[in-house]
Amino acid sequence: MKVLRGLGVSAGVAVGPAHLMFPGHIKVSRTRIAPEETESEIARLKKAIEATAEEIEKLKKELPPNLGEVHAILEAQRLIVKDPSLISEAEELIREGFNAEWALFKVLKRYEKAFSELPDEYFRERYRDLVQMVERIISTLQGHRDLPNEERAIIVAQDLSPADTVSLKPDFTLAFVTEAGSRTSHTAIVARSLGIPAVVAAKGILKEVSPGDLLAIDGTTGEIFINPVEEIISEFSERARRFERLKVRLHQVAHLSSETKDGRRIILRANLDLPEEIPFARDYGAEGIGLFRTEYLYVSRRELPYEELLFETYRRVVEDIAPHPVTIRTLDLGGDKFASVLDLPEEINPALGLRAIRLCLKEDHLFRTQLRAILRASAYGKVKIMFPLISGVAEFLRARNLVEEIKEELAREGLPFDPEVPVGAMIEVPSAVAVADLLAREADFFSIGTNDLIQYTLAIDRGNEEVAELYEPLHPAILRFIKTTVTAGHRAGIPVAMCGEMAGDLLYVPILVGLELDELSMNPQSLPEVKLFIRELEFKKCRELVEKVLNLTCQDEVKEAVSEVFGPHIRKFSRSLWFE
Amino acid sequence: MKVLRGLGVSAGVAVGPAHLMFPGHIKVSRTRIAPEETESEIARLKKAIEATAEEIEKLKKELPPNLGEVHAILEAQRLIVKDPSLISEAEELIREGFNAEWALFKVLKRYEKAFSELPDEYFRERYRDLVQMVERIISTLQGHRDLPNEERAIIVAQDLSPADTVSLKPDFTLAFVTEAGSRTSHTAIVARSLGIPAVVAAKGILKEVSPGDLLAIDGTTGEIFINPVEEIISEFSERARRFERLKVRLHQVAHLSSETKDGRRIILRANLDLPEEIPFARDYGAEGIGLFRTEYLYVSRRELPYEELLFETYRRVVEDIAPHPVTIRTLDLGGDKFASVLDLPEEINPALGLRAIRLCLKEDHLFRTQLRAILRASAYGKVKIMFPLISGVAEFLRARNLVEEIKEELAREGLPFDPEVPVGAMIEVPSAVAVADLLAREADFFSIGTNDLIQYTLAIDRGNEEVAELYEPLHPAILRFIKTTVTAGHRAGIPVAMCGEMAGDLLYVPILVGLELDELSMNPQSLPEVKLFIRELEFKKCRELVEKVLNLTCQDEVKEAVSEVFGPHIRKFSRSLWFE
Repeated sequence: MKVLRGLGVSAGVAVGPAHLMFPGHIKVSRTRIAPEETESEIARLKKAIEATAEEIEKLKKELPPNLGEVHAILEAQRLIVKDPSLISEAEELIREGFNAEWALFKVLKRYEKAFSELPDEYFRERYRDLVQMVERIISTLQGHRDLPNEERAIIVAQDLSPADTVSLKPDFTLAFVTEAGSRTSHTAIVARSLGIPAVVAAKGILKEVSPGDLLAIDGTTGEIFINPVEEIISEFSERARRFERLKVRLHQVAHLSSETKDGRRIILRANLDLPEEIPFARDYGAEGIGLFRTEYLYVSRRELPYEELLFETYRRVVEDIAPHPVTIRTLDLGGDKFASVLDLPEEINPALGLRAIRLCLKEDHLFRTQLRAILRASAYGKVKIMFPLISGVAEFLRARNLVEEIKEELAREGLPFDPEVPVGAMIEVPSAVAVADLLAREADFFSIGTNDLIQYTLAIDRGNEEVAELYEPLHPAILRFIKTTVTAGHRAGIPVAMCGEMAGDLLYVPILVGLELDELSMNPQSLPEVKLFIRELEFKKCRELVEKVLNLTCQDEVKEAVSEVFGPHIRKFSRSLWFE
Repeated sequence: MKVLRGLGVSAGVAVGPAHLMFPGHIKVSRTRIAPEETESEIARLKKAIEATAEEIEKLKKELPPNLGEVHAILEAQRLIVKDPSLISEAEELIREGFNAEWALFKVLKRYEKAFSELPDEYFRERYRDLVQMVERIISTLQGHRDLPNEERAIIVAQDLSPADTVSLKPDFTLAFVTEAGSRTSHTAIVARSLGIPAVVAAKGILKEVSPGDLLAIDGTTGEIFINPVEEIISEFSERARRFERLKVRLHQVAHLSSETKDGRRIILRANLDLPEEIPFARDYGAEGIGLFRTEYLYVSRRELPYEELLFETYRRVVEDIAPHPVTIRTLDLGGDKFASVLDLPEEINPALGLRAIRLCLKEDHLFRTQLRAILRASAYGKVKIMFPLISGVAEFLRARNLVEEIKEELAREGLPFDPEVPVGAMIEVPSAVAVADLLAREADFFSIGTNDLIQYTLAIDRGNEEVAELYEPLHPAILRFIKTTVTAGHRAGIPVAMCGEMAGDLLYVPILVGLELDELSMNPQSLPEVKLFIRELEFKKCRELVEKVLNLTCQDEVKEAVSEVFGPHIRKFSRSLWFE
């Protein structure tokens, strides 16, 4: 028995045989064909291409309705499959006497060089699409679509294309495990939508697993057991049963009120990457959207989105989430979030560079277009605007004044908008904490972005493996900065929310409640468990805990203090600790 | 008349004709030589090489005694000139029928390719040495050493090798202006040591200036006037006179006490990059070294420095600055400060990565060796140890405990050290400010490193031109963080110093005095003017100013408030504003 751990991105438990897809890269052998075989080989190629395109088309039609983005990707990939130059270049190579598989492979290699010379994220993504499609055509040519049709299996792969993920229906697929991937990769999104357990970022899985090995995986904890012993298998059956009970329970709690035993109410909202995720947010009982990330329309396109496109998207979100509000974060691009359309210079420390509100105030036209679209959408429901990466009062006022300017512009044009739309500041730069009392006089609300706040406060890039262990959300310095922010906000009479990843972790919840945050916004999936937990807490006890932990020396001590008081409760409600 | 602005790195004023050195790259033409000329051509090459080596040797001997590092570079370059493979490869090409200049040039090009494939900073530096030497040999071959021997001139160049800078004696040279360079480049260090005015980083200067143009330059303000009008010329004569008077005055004040009119004493110390700079520090009246940067021995060598080498260097500094103390900052490597010997991984945000104390605690052997050397040097004078990039109490205690461990080790070995050596924390990460009260209980002193503190607090990489204007040392958030740190230190009864660039700027001095810092450490050159200024200030007024500026919205407002109260004083004492 071996144990690996990845990132659990779609909850659920599975035990079954491993089915390896495309272990390593596709294998293509070069075969010489006789001149008289040329035409039939070309026909074979065209047939495979046609079949692949049809297959994609079919997958697209069967797609769950909330996966609009995946739909768009599949359509783009279908167009690649049908690309005339791909076909004609491969055809040419076949005429030179090579087999169709080899010809396609050569064409791919030819493009690889060309693509690799483009310094542009957008094109590199398109190359990945191309690779995935050529692999698909080749496996059709080779007569095996590499699917586990005989028995239900756990799919193990380097990475899965959206098409692969969609085509691996629950009928055949017990779970996904991939070497690559993240919480927001398409595999994760599709798996959650289809209700298939999934673990991504499972380093080393392809080396460790052989076809047919028995696997036991937990899409919540990220655990992967290879050829587990009998005890583990029965434990996983028990986990599966508990998970099913849990699912029923979680949906029941969606509409309970989120308040502590002693009556402190904390508003729970959802973070949103794509409009398609709104049904999840509603199902899980979100009282609106606490963070709508608006980068998607900028990074997924070759051109800047025009005002109408933005407006229609925002309006859809506003209407879908009504009567609850949506908090729209203005563009947080630049830094590591690269938009190919913006043609930004390379930076040595992108996290400390031209990004978010800085970029928006510099590239004024970009910002104006977005603000116009947001304000116009505000006529159709409850909208709140928040600016990311605010570092001080002067910067906030510049952005806020622009909102006022645009309101006047829209009024002159006779376009409707909400004149009272609240404008808030994200607190994620340490300097904003330092002047939170001054900022609170100008902003209508605060929202603490913990990911960046922790990164800058501790001077730790959380994406950097070398220092990842030093990224401590519970570092007493972070907790003190949160407290400073909340106190400043409340003294000025404005609400203070938190929308970073911290908000969705049960271990942190008693502290966040004790720090008197008014609102927590998180991944929709975390909402039910956080709510159930809050309902078990006493506000008084949480405040006592906070007083204590603010004077400890490091995260480990804080964790210990939390566990001491709330350990049993956390274990009761945590998905991640449920089964330990 | 045109005006450019660079970085003034060596004070003084000059007006005179421009002399362009190596405009662009060296020009070498390929000439075929007859077989019977081969031997004489080889002899010509060898003679030029011999002459160049002798020239370097001579420059080395004439070097001012405090330029030990430049001495070492010249010796390394002399060895390159005498390198047998350089000679033999060039000889071979001459035997193939080419002229000596071309042969050398070809050998250089050959090496260029080889060097460019080495991904290593150290080797790239060595290649620059090689280029500089080959250029020197070629100009000897071409019969013109490109020096302004007839009349004293202002040397304009892309960059100057240490040898060039040293050979351009004040007899011939009015001033240096280079396109490249920084405050710590060799041109700057040598120029200051020789008392020649210099402006570096003067972008575009080579395009704008033609040989013989009249230039007026100010090595303090960085101003460069090309073909100035009569008014400017007479203004510069006046500046020159005032500068001479100022020099005399500044040296007179070196040994005055630095205290305000109402008796608040602020200790003034020097920042040190190289042991060679200690004579400056003493001349300018430094009461010890507030920041000794110890990276030099790590980045300038191919191997890690061994304990004895570190010990001897530290001991020399400790003895040279006695009876004053030297504050040794332990290794601040990693991030953008790359040491070829450490073989660190590339990071996306190096400023937020594995650097300074983090690297030292991870690469324990590195840290132990340095701590042993520092502790051993502490037996020879007053040493203080400070750890860079401390983010919290637990991290500080880990480092401090290592010091204790090594003391025990040295005691067992019978090696002497100061058992009472103070151990302090640099405050440059926002989290350290947040827990300054807790840290103050464990540390013997604080030293605020403003460069990093500003960078992390505002989330601005000051090296990034795109956001450089957002790097605001006087941002109210920064001032508040400094105040928090000072208050925490004083409550615990420990002194609080500042050793970032802020400490040496007159505009900031009234605020730093009002913030109750105990000690300011800065570039030695700034010490006299800061001291004179402090002697004109009233502590009471400075504190009133601070109370006011802590509630302003941005740096510009703070600057205005400072100017309002102290403007006339600042203009009186500031080198940079002296002549406005």
